[in-house]
Order: sequence, then C-alpha cells, then structure tokens
Amino acid sequence: MEYIKNIREKRPLVHSITNYVTVNDLANILLAIGASPIMADAIEEMEDIAQIADALNINIGTLNKETVEAMHLAGKFMAKYKKVIVLDPVGAGASAFRTNTARDLIDNIPFDVIKGNISEIKALFGDSRTTCGVDANEDDLLTEDKEEESINFIKKIAQNRSTILVVTGKRDIITDGKKVYLVDNGCEAMKNITGSGCMLSGLIAAFVSANKSQVLEATLAAVITMGIAGERAFKNMKTGEGNFSYRGYILDVISNINDEVLEREASYELR
Amino acid sequence: MEYIKNIREKRPLVHSITNYVTVNDLANILLAIGASPIMADAIEEMEDIAQIADALNINIGTLNKETVEAMHLAGKFMAKYKKVIVLDPVGAGASAFRTNTARDLIDNIPFDVIKGNISEIKALFGDSRTTCGVDANEDDLLTEDKEEESINFIKKIAQNRSTILVVTGKRDIITDGKKVYLVDNGCEAMKNITGSGCMLSGLIAAFVSANKSQVLEATLAAVITMGIAGERAFKNMKTGEGNFSYRGYILDVISNINDEVLEREASYELR
Amino acid sequence: MEYIKNIREKRPLVHSITNYVTVNDLANILLAIGASPIMADAIEEMEDIAQIADALNINIGTLNKETVEAMHLAGKFMAKYKKVIVLDPVGAGASAFRTNTARDLIDNIPFDVIKGNISEIKALFGDSRTTCGVDANEDDLLTEDKEEESINFIKKIAQNRSTILVVTGKRDIITDGKKVYLVDNGCEAMKNITGSGCMLSGLIAAFVSANKSQVLEATLAAVITMGIAGERAFKNMKTGEGNFSYRGYILDVISNINDEVLEREASYELR
Repeated sequence: MEYIKNIREKRPLVHSITNYVTVNDLANILLAIGASPIMADAIEEMEDIAQIADALNINIGTLNKETVEAMHLAGKFMAKYKKVIVLDPVGAGASAFRTNTARDLIDNIPFDVIKGNISEIKALFGDSRTTCGVDANEDDLLTEDKEEESINFIKKIAQNRSTILVVTGKRDIITDGKKVYLVDNGCEAMKNITGSGCMLSGLIAAFVSANKSQVLEATLAAVITMGIAGERAFKNMKTGEGNFSYRGYILDVISNINDEVLEREASYELR
Repeated sequence: MEYIKNIREKRPLVHSITNYVTVNDLANILLAIGASPIMADAIEEMEDIAQIADALNINIGTLNKETVEAMHLAGKFMAKYKKVIVLDPVGAGASAFRTNTARDLIDNIPFDVIKGNISEIKALFGDSRTTCGVDANEDDLLTEDKEEESINFIKKIAQNRSTILVVTGKRDIITDGKKVYLVDNGCEAMKNITGSGCMLSGLIAAFVSANKSQVLEATLAAVITMGIAGERAFKNMKTGEGNFSYRGYILDVISNINDEVLEREASYELR
Repeated sequence: MEYIKNIREKRPLVHSITNYVTVNDLANILLAIGASPIMADAIEEMEDIAQIADALNINIGTLNKETVEAMHLAGKFMAKYKKVIVLDPVGAGASAFRTNTARDLIDNIPFDVIKGNISEIKALFGDSRTTCGVDANEDDLLTEDKEEESINFIKKIAQNRSTILVVTGKRDIITDGKKVYLVDNGCEAMKNITGSGCMLSGLIAAFVSANKSQVLEATLAAVITMGIAGERAFKNMKTGEGNFSYRGYILDVISNINDEVLEREASYELR
C-alpha cells in the first residue's frame, strides 16, 4: 500500500473548479497530502490546463452560468486527455439549478468518481430518470436502518453509470458497481466545519491520479484518509477549542499522515 | 434567555450572498453557533433557496453586476416567503457603486436588520435623500463625543425605514426606532482581523431567524455574542500570537458559547 | 530603517484584485503588517477606489473576462492618480490565457513592481517579444547554477521595462535594472502552503506605498519580511503540526514583526 507515497512522489496537479467558500482549505489539503493545486474557471484556459493537469475536481458548491460552462469544457478536455475526473455535487437537491447542472455534467462527462451525501445522490439518481427502478418508495429506501437496500441502490447506479460512487454518511459507501466497501473511519464533529466534503473530493482526485492502476482502492484510501484525519484531529481537541481548531488539526494531520498510519487505523469492510 | 439554545435546536439555514474574502469565516461561524450555511448567488436558484432557507444575509463586500441582480431577486423571494433578511453594506461610501447598490437594495427589500459602521450608515442615510433632516453638519454629528445626537440620528432612520439598525463602533448601537440598546462588549483588536463585521451579520441572521418573536432582543444578543467572543478570544492570546490566532480563538469561543455565558458577561444598557 | 513603522502609522489602503483562493490570507497579512485591505473587482467602482487607495495589487491567480477588464481599468486609474501598482502573474505559462493577460497588463500599466517565480518570469519575458536577446537557450539560462546569467537576464528586463522585478526562488532576486539585491531569508516549507506568494505581493504593495521615497529598498524590505516570517514560523513548528499551523505562525509573526527584527535577521547581499 503506497497510495500516499505515490502522491508525494508524483505530485499530481489537481485542477479544481470549485466553490469560493472552501477553496482555500481545498488548496491546503492538496498541498498537505503532497499534490499540487490549480484553480481556474475561465473557459479560455480549460484546454491548456487539461493538458498539464493530472486530475479535474468539479464541485458545484457555488455555481454561476460561466463556471458551469467552464465545468463542461474542462470535463470534455480532461476526458480527451484521459485525465482523472471527480464530481462533488454539493447541494444537489437544494435547487433545481444545482440538480440539473449536476445531471447535465453526469450525462456529458465520464466521471471516474462521484461523491455525495445520501440526499445529494438521491436528488441526482432517485427519480424516474434512473434506470434502476427506483420508484416512489425511494424516500424510505436510503435510510441507515435499511443499509442493505441502500447499498444495492447505490451499486446499481454505479453499474448503470460506469462510475465509482462514494456516498458519505455514518458509514461511507464506496462502490464501482461490483465491489462494495464500507468505511467506518470518521467522526460526527466533521459536520461542524465547512469543507470536509470538499476536501475529501480533492483527496480522491489526488489519490486516484497518483494511483491509476487501482482506482477503486485509491478512492477507498482517500475516504479512509479523510476519516482518520477527522478521528485524529478530534483526539487533539482540548477544552475550549472549537471548529476552527478542529479544521486546523485535520489539515495538520493530513500533512503528517502516511501509508503506515492508513494501514494501521483503517476501519472498513468489503461487502 | 434561550437565544443560542434555540439556534442549536432549530439549526436555521442561513443563505448568504457575500464577499469572497471572508466567506469561509462566515460559514464556520454559522456552524459554530449552531446554524447551517448555504452560499449561492446564481439568479437561477434564488427562489428555490428562499423556500428552504430561514434567513438571507446580504453582504456587499465584493460586488459585481450578476451578484447585485441575485441580491435583488433573493430579497424579493425571501420577502415573499416571510424569511428574515439582513444587510451588511460593507464599504458603502467607498465607491458610488457600493453606495448606490446598498441604497437600491434598501429601497426595494424589507430588511429586518441593517448593520454597518458609522461611516457606512452615514454614506447610506446621511444626505438629503433621507427624511430625517440631516444636513451639512452631519460630519460632526456622528462622532463619539456626540453620542446623544448620534443615537437620535440613528433612531430616526430606523423609524423612517421601519428596520432595526445596528451601528458598530466603540459602543454598538442597536435600535428599532423605539428602544435603543448600547453594547459595550467587544475589543479593539477585532479591527485587526478581516471578517469580524461579516461574521456579526451572519450571527444576526442566525439569532433572529431562530428567535423570531423577539427580533430586537435577538439582534442585541447576536451583537453581545460577537463582542464577548472578541473579549474572550483576546484573553486567550499568548505572547507571539497575532491576528491569525485571534480569529481562531473567536471562532472557537463561538463553538463553546451558550446562553449562560451571554447572560453573565453581557455589558449593555437600554437607553 | 522605518519601513514597518511607516506602514503602521500611515495605514495604506491596498486595493487588491486577486484570486479567490488566497484572498482571505491576503487580507489578514495586510492587516497584520498594519495596512488596510480593500478587495473590489467591479468595473463600476475602479475609479472611485483608485482615488482613495494608496496601492493596487493585481494577482491573476484566478481570472475571468470581467476581472481582466477590471484589472486594466484599475491600472489605468491608479496610474492616473499616481498610486503604487504591483503585479503578481500567478501561473503565467500554465495557460495562454494567463500568459497573454499578464503580457497585456504589463504592456498597458506602468507597474512599479512585478513579482513572480522564475518560470512565470520566463513565460512572460523569455521569448522573442522581449528585446533583451534571449533566444532558444533561455531554458538553460535561468537555472540556479547559472546565477550570474539569471541575474543579468532579469536585470535587463527590469531596465527595458522600467520596473522593479522580484524573482522568488531559493535566493530571491530584486532589481530595478541597476542595483541587484539577493535575499537568502525564507524557507523551503513555504512551498507547502498556498498563498505565500500572494501574501508577498500584498506586502510589497504595503511597504512601497508607505515608503515611496525608497521604492527599491521598500520592496527589498517586504521580501525580507516575508522570508523572516517563514523562518520564524518554521522554528515555531511542533511535532504533529503541518501546513495549517505553519500558515498561522506566518501570519502571527507578521502581526508582531518590527523594523528591529528586520534589521537583525535580514540576510541579503547587494550584487
């Protein structure tokens, strides 16, 4: 297992078109894990950057007409140059604009990995448009106590869409439609900071682009890495500290993490 | 007094159209106090978000034509759905574009609370456009040694505009045109970090939307909370620490603050 | 030597048109050194802000059509009102759009200082467009083992362009085309955080606008200040800390730095 070692040796350049809320944390977590960030959303430079970048990380956390156009172009060129492409459909379901934008992106770009929480994934795939037969019962389907059903639902989407799906939650689900991994690393407190999801997408882009022969396992490793960072950061918290310190500890842990820690502290199962 | 308890129970969703300088701090302070942030400035999603959000926080710290249009639309829909609306006219007076944008917003949107420093409020209301008779002497009017006059000036604006005004300064003034509260909490050092004003506006949106039956007192509580955070953070400062640490302490204090602290450390008077 | 004292007394207002990745760090470092930040990129307010600001800091880290137009306008008005103008051509060379945008800016705006790393400077000036006779050998020219040649190349550009050039690297080079300073302050670890370059440009704008009678030396002082901050921050690092803590230490050091520290810890030579 040399996922992190590979990132630090190859220093993949990760192009992110992302929201302006958590973009600084994203840049810093990419540097912390050993990757190199570039942010750009001008349509004029999407092809040039596709040629030099190793991965594209699209995050729809704050959208506007221009960035949507840039996302489509970037996706097209990154696909042309066979680069890794990751989607984080932040807030899909919160507005038709976000849901439709994410769906259009998915229909037109061959994403290697799509990562969302359960309500985002539901908003994107849980209607008649999907071919996996989900119907009016979908609201009940994706609850924690119906883990088995949820897993099958997500697995089918991954199969139909030929992509890896990462669905974050109490247990994170990672599947390519064949294998299913369930990850228990992570920590409730991660909800109290902004950007933990955005940072995870960035890590996935870095892990996959530096470990292209094992896309599913590299994605799993990224999810585990973020989870361990959340756990270790939480242990560092002292009385009186809050979400600012917590976010700082997460980034500092990522700066110091390595494959041995990953192997030792990973908590997951292959279902 | 259960202002903060109410926020943490109701987790109000605060939609912010804000500047890209301090947006991350804003998201994190909202999470720290127990609210939930969403940032969005695409006109296409303003109505959808107005339906699910509890409050709108408009901050003109960095403007462009598109976001101004989004602000007007968001304001219109939030008003339609009876949500709480807060304005932070950052830098009004620094350019005609900012001043005019803020005035247009005020003329068209029924803001529950407008929060600015004395020069922003002067830029917006201190000319012949206002009906409170302020004339060429206004420059002298709003100084600290003329507190009584300043208060009367601000009170009149609040009356005429049917809004709550928060004017930050050495003593913060909060008034709905009838009652006037003066707050002494806070700390000079807050000027040394970017975003303390933007964070306060976010807190006001959170406090008011979770405590709708007491809009003026909830606004007061938000101002006091920010002030106490500034004071407590300052006490935490160690030799060699600077504005990065100070901002971190403020956010960490907010994560841990509660209504008991508020009651105990509040320093204000009803004038 | 009273460079920092002058900043803290005059509190120059630095207008930045910059990327949304590191903008918060930029605002905070400006406050930490004693300057006052304003961010604005709406064309409607470029002239108003040029009148009240002391310096303009243009950073092309994230570009779009609108901000490019704002940069040109801001540059025009700042020149008209004789304000200090600094360029940070982030990522020039990474895309034709960035390279061409930076070249257009340089051709149209009388920058007082241009600061880049060696590959950005090469991308901008290392072709037939420059009049300093650099040809196909340029790739070899600007390496560390050919310091003398590099210095002459950079010196010539500064002469031809009548600007101060700052080229960051293991040793930073600062020249107005006549004098050349080489700075050894700084630290490898600064590469592990995002924004150290952007923060330096902001410092240059602050130092120069508060010390206009000594533009070259003020630029040198800004470079040394950033370098010392990097060194001191690195010494503060404890086991387990990473790039989040490092960035925090840099900002905290800047909050506390003064001219005496500068004088004592500066490590540079006049070539």
